[in-house]
Amino acid sequence: MKEITAIIRMNMVTKTKEALLKSGFPAFTCRKVMGRGKRKVDFSFFTTEFQEKLQDKNIAEQVTEMHRLVAKRMITILVDDADVQNVVNTIVEVNRTGNPGDGKIFVTNVVDVARVRTGETGTAAI
Amino acid sequence: MKEITAIIRMNMVTKTKEALLKSGFPAFTCRKVMGRGKRKVDFSFFTTEFQEKLQDKNIAEQVTEMHRLVAKRMITILVDDADVQNVVNTIVEVNRTGNPGDGKIFVTNVVDVARVRTGETGTAAI
Amino acid sequence: MKEITAIIRMNMVTKTKEALLKSGFPAFTCRKVMGRGKRKVDFSFFTTEFQEKLQDKNIAEQVTEMHRLVAKRMITILVDDADVQNVVNTIVEVNRTGNPGDGKIFVTNVVDVARVRTGETGTAAI
Repeated sequence: MKEITAIIRMNMVTKTKEALLKSGFPAFTCRKVMGRGKRKVDFSFFTTEFQEKLQDKNIAEQVTEMHRLVAKRMITILVDDADVQNVVNTIVEVNRTGNPGDGKIFVTNVVDVARVRTGETGTAAI
Repeated sequence: MKEITAIIRMNMVTKTKEALLKSGFPAFTCRKVMGRGKRKVDFSFFTTEFQEKLQDKNIAEQVTEMHRLVAKRMITILVDDADVQNVVNTIVEVNRTGNPGDGKIFVTNVVDVARVRTGETGTAAI
Repeated sequence: MKEITAIIRMNMVTKTKEALLKSGFPAFTCRKVMGRGKRKVDFSFFTTEFQEKLQDKNIAEQVTEMHRLVAKRMITILVDDADVQNVVNTIVEVNRTGNPGDGKIFVTNVVDVARVRTGETGTAAI
């Protein structure tokens, strides 16, 4: 069993939810996180006024501004090993815009699962 | 070492907290998540008025409604391998109502732990 | 690849962010969690009035009060195996005050990573 964790744009949750449902993976959890990638925030999108203000700040403040955390959604899905590629592809297809900030997906091993309602464990509980 | 992650009902956090404390596991973190299981929302519990409104919507909207995300609590506990079964059983016992939505527990491997205050690592830091 | 998860004090996020940036690890996600360590809350810091109020409560309520959940920040960073020690040390150094509640770090294995924007997987996608 694997846990697939995807960090995606806030406005992509509904589309991702629908796509996963269509692919046969209705179950997941979703939470708000603050995230930052390797790229600096691109300030060419900001107003000149904002950029001038930034120039007036000291280096430490500039660094903080340029590596601001951005609100993201983190979704977690539990799948059989055989379904990992399918789910990862589904998420990539729906979320790829080609721009920085599209997100990241990571896959981790899950040793065991239990369904609280029945007490079932293992693959039966996914 | 293992990380035990449990997704439970919002109103079960206090009871779970008490049960884990009694079993000798006081330490954990808890966070709000939005979750969805494999089951559709059962609309027979809803008013006829609500159901009629739903019928008027298109298929895409119906699907969205029927697979709504529900607010849940995700708790995370770090334990020795020998304690996994004990902690999982404790959580299942407290949270089982027999109804869909009771939650899910998954167990993952933890490679290393560090306690920030002392810098200790490994089992000593759990 | 490894996922490093650190639970730290709320007021340490900015300092930790800066330190990780300086060490060459700008990318991470951060979220609010409620946490509890093994230690009871130390009520000697509280007013006598509060302590007397507590004495009037029954045992169950006292236990709840003494093991209250505290708001924390959980940060997650994805790194190459070779960088784990460096990142853990950076976080410990910045966050260590020597007092209980400094936090905890755990390291888990990541099987695979994908960058949504490009579809790259593996080490290239970290």
